[in-house]
Amino acid sequence: MTVSHSIKKPQRNPQLNSHGELIHLLSTEGLPKATIHQILDTAEAFLSVNDREVKKVPLLRGKSVFNLFFENSTRTRTTFEIAATRLSADVINLDIARSSASKGESLLDTIANLSAMAADIFVVRHSESGAPYLIAQHVAPHVHVVNAGDGRHAHPTQGLLDAYTIRHFKGNFANLTVAIVGDVLHSRVARSNIHALTTLGCAEVRVVGPRTLVPSDMAAMGVRVCHDLKEGISGADVVMTLRLQNERMSGALLPSSQEFAKSFGLTNERLQWAKPDAIVMHPGPVNRGVEIDSAVLDGPRSVVLNQVTFGIAVRMAVMSIVAGHSA
Amino acid sequence: MTVSHSIKKPQRNPQLNSHGELIHLLSTEGLPKATIHQILDTAEAFLSVNDREVKKVPLLRGKSVFNLFFENSTRTRTTFEIAATRLSADVINLDIARSSASKGESLLDTIANLSAMAADIFVVRHSESGAPYLIAQHVAPHVHVVNAGDGRHAHPTQGLLDAYTIRHFKGNFANLTVAIVGDVLHSRVARSNIHALTTLGCAEVRVVGPRTLVPSDMAAMGVRVCHDLKEGISGADVVMTLRLQNERMSGALLPSSQEFAKSFGLTNERLQWAKPDAIVMHPGPVNRGVEIDSAVLDGPRSVVLNQVTFGIAVRMAVMSIVAGHSA
Amino acid sequence: MTVSHSIKKPQRNPQLNSHGELIHLLSTEGLPKATIHQILDTAEAFLSVNDREVKKVPLLRGKSVFNLFFENSTRTRTTFEIAATRLSADVINLDIARSSASKGESLLDTIANLSAMAADIFVVRHSESGAPYLIAQHVAPHVHVVNAGDGRHAHPTQGLLDAYTIRHFKGNFANLTVAIVGDVLHSRVARSNIHALTTLGCAEVRVVGPRTLVPSDMAAMGVRVCHDLKEGISGADVVMTLRLQNERMSGALLPSSQEFAKSFGLTNERLQWAKPDAIVMHPGPVNRGVEIDSAVLDGPRSVVLNQVTFGIAVRMAVMSIVAGHSA
Repeated sequence: MTVSHSIKKPQRNPQLNSHGELIHLLSTEGLPKATIHQILDTAEAFLSVNDREVKKVPLLRGKSVFNLFFENSTRTRTTFEIAATRLSADVINLDIARSSASKGESLLDTIANLSAMAADIFVVRHSESGAPYLIAQHVAPHVHVVNAGDGRHAHPTQGLLDAYTIRHFKGNFANLTVAIVGDVLHSRVARSNIHALTTLGCAEVRVVGPRTLVPSDMAAMGVRVCHDLKEGISGADVVMTLRLQNERMSGALLPSSQEFAKSFGLTNERLQWAKPDAIVMHPGPVNRGVEIDSAVLDGPRSVVLNQVTFGIAVRMAVMSIVAGHSA
Repeated sequence: MTVSHSIKKPQRNPQLNSHGELIHLLSTEGLPKATIHQILDTAEAFLSVNDREVKKVPLLRGKSVFNLFFENSTRTRTTFEIAATRLSADVINLDIARSSASKGESLLDTIANLSAMAADIFVVRHSESGAPYLIAQHVAPHVHVVNAGDGRHAHPTQGLLDAYTIRHFKGNFANLTVAIVGDVLHSRVARSNIHALTTLGCAEVRVVGPRTLVPSDMAAMGVRVCHDLKEGISGADVVMTLRLQNERMSGALLPSSQEFAKSFGLTNERLQWAKPDAIVMHPGPVNRGVEIDSAVLDGPRSVVLNQVTFGIAVRMAVMSIVAGHSA
Repeated sequence: MTVSHSIKKPQRNPQLNSHGELIHLLSTEGLPKATIHQILDTAEAFLSVNDREVKKVPLLRGKSVFNLFFENSTRTRTTFEIAATRLSADVINLDIARSSASKGESLLDTIANLSAMAADIFVVRHSESGAPYLIAQHVAPHVHVVNAGDGRHAHPTQGLLDAYTIRHFKGNFANLTVAIVGDVLHSRVARSNIHALTTLGCAEVRVVGPRTLVPSDMAAMGVRVCHDLKEGISGADVVMTLRLQNERMSGALLPSSQEFAKSFGLTNERLQWAKPDAIVMHPGPVNRGVEIDSAVLDGPRSVVLNQVTFGIAVRMAVMSIVAGHSA
């Protein structure tokens, strides 16, 4: 697929080749709108695969997908493993934390070695922002990099599966108000959503949370900053709650998670401030009773488990699309 | 297959659907005799698969089997992985101890999330008795749960592979005396065997061990309790030794494993108390010289390695049968 | 393939059956020259598989390859996993360190159990020299053992992939001078290379390093011992650098890795002592700036990444050859 409007400066976006085709997925930032829709459309086609008797398509048969999780995340790794398996790829899980890194080898040497084993796709999770970019700059033309979360920077497949979920339930982005609630400061999920949703043309994207957890420069990203939950979710079509990283909450940013829940936890009562047909999202895993009440999570407006299901299809879409293009 | 005699009260057994078909394997307790024989017959057909040049059948092609080992057991996990692979399923191993559980997510939230990834079978190992039942109550109708060991409660595939082994070598259960020797108190293997063997109509099942390791209420399960090895295995057709959990033996229950071996360890000399053609079993891993002497273990009456081989076929049978039914 | 000249005493080499065919790969020591060339020729045919759209051949379809890594090595395990997968085998990775071994089971009991699961190939890594031999002596006739590194003893697939690399770039062994530089004392890689290269008829094999790291009895293996780098690599066609095990360098053998680099580190300046078209090798992972300078490693004479690529093909060759023969 040629994305015509990005042809003018393809060399500036490391995710696209000179034809404007997606070769890596590193961030939702800078992804052309048409590319995002291509991913969502492809995911839609794959959703039916998961309902079949034989849940596989042979698109990546004989291809090798390497899960390189420098930061441990069983859940995310599993979703990529399932997605790759359903595309008939061979999946190699590298417990990279226990591996060569501990022998003092540099990231790029590790990558060069794995590339030499004729890898096709690297799915990379790393605690340092930008690591997948660095890798993408150094791999051979036939190798594709998919960012599965880097530092606080980006988690693009999460952003895309969230966009898929919104499109699925709301149809069109043009008139939507999306409120992203919680610890925006530490959230790569929030960042990836903001880029995707503004590109997709949401009417309004809001970030909602205490001053210590919502950076003031967020307004520059084209979003509205709210420090009051009622103001933040009033009239919203989508209320996207974020995971509160308890391990980070012992410091100066927040007195306690209970304190957070008192002001920003989503209850059924508070949910009435949003539109009557608002959907409620969460990237998981959920701290029940902190960022979201059990009654909301298990209630009729929660689409949290749909997000998980759609996530497999979106990751199948991303991998099949990048594997079809070369640098 | 309709198990006619269980149709009257199918709603009471969570392992069977309303047609009396096996949809989960949670325990050998309450399994209809016909269902057990169906599993053993199916296993017999699969045994020949392991002898073929290509050791695979396409029965579960495109199905996803999730190994959820909340309690680590490489050996048991491996047998399920091999069994699933030989049925052509895709296997996802979840190192669940390192995963979401450690992020404070509840068991049922973890299960709901994994179900949303379009899982077909959950193989569950858990240190708490009853965890697989809880999971089976909450999964979607298309998902099947196989208990790979829960607390001290049950280890049904072990019970079934033991039943298979006995049927293989002895033909018929009706006239058999089976002696289960050792730490019956802590043994889910013993419990699963007792339920299977009494249902299958063994003439006599005995549990044999020191008073501290054989609960006195065992008699209520329809077995004979013996605290003397000679009495316990006299005339037995099958001597099933249990693993002594050394890690539990430092307490008040047993002075030492040497003390246990002195009274209950199976030697060739003592084995003469059993029938001349008695077979000797052990679920593994063996403490040589404690519950069983090397000369017995490596001798002509030991069928310990046959148990391992049959275990693969029995697990193939269980997974293929439950996957063929819906709730 | 019948290796005629080894028929006379096949019973003495546990790697060959009575027809002189390779059934296990335990060491390059004692491997007939024709067998080594058979492996290299087969690897050459497989190399093209890695360039195909679908990188798989069905040679080991339905076979079970067990990766038994008693000593952790993610990198080596990965290469075997990829090789087996490209042969269409099913791969079971056993985190054996966390498994039955920790329950006090003996190595041979573990192996007997895994054999009973109808394994076809065991890929074994063990910290104790000779462990793969012990295993090979005890497995059933249909099971094949491939040594993936045992203690300081042998790492035969590394030796073979190095031989492949040399043959690929230099064509013929007859006139070659190969210098193996570094910590020869601790290196199973060095040992496996020496046996392979002398069998293949290299004109001269030299081992080069400080007296504390090159055993004096090396001369008995038919190699020339040099304690001076200039002398050691002068006129060499191949300079094979070894990994310096930093964790071993804190003791009495070497003042520091910097000290080693000063005398034996390969720089572009020193590389001029070798032939102008000399190739530079390293088994990885590399300590840049210690055994080899970055300018050399990333320079035109380095074939380090080719070694990695060839390694996959050589491991495919070894597994497909042994699986085709029976004891």
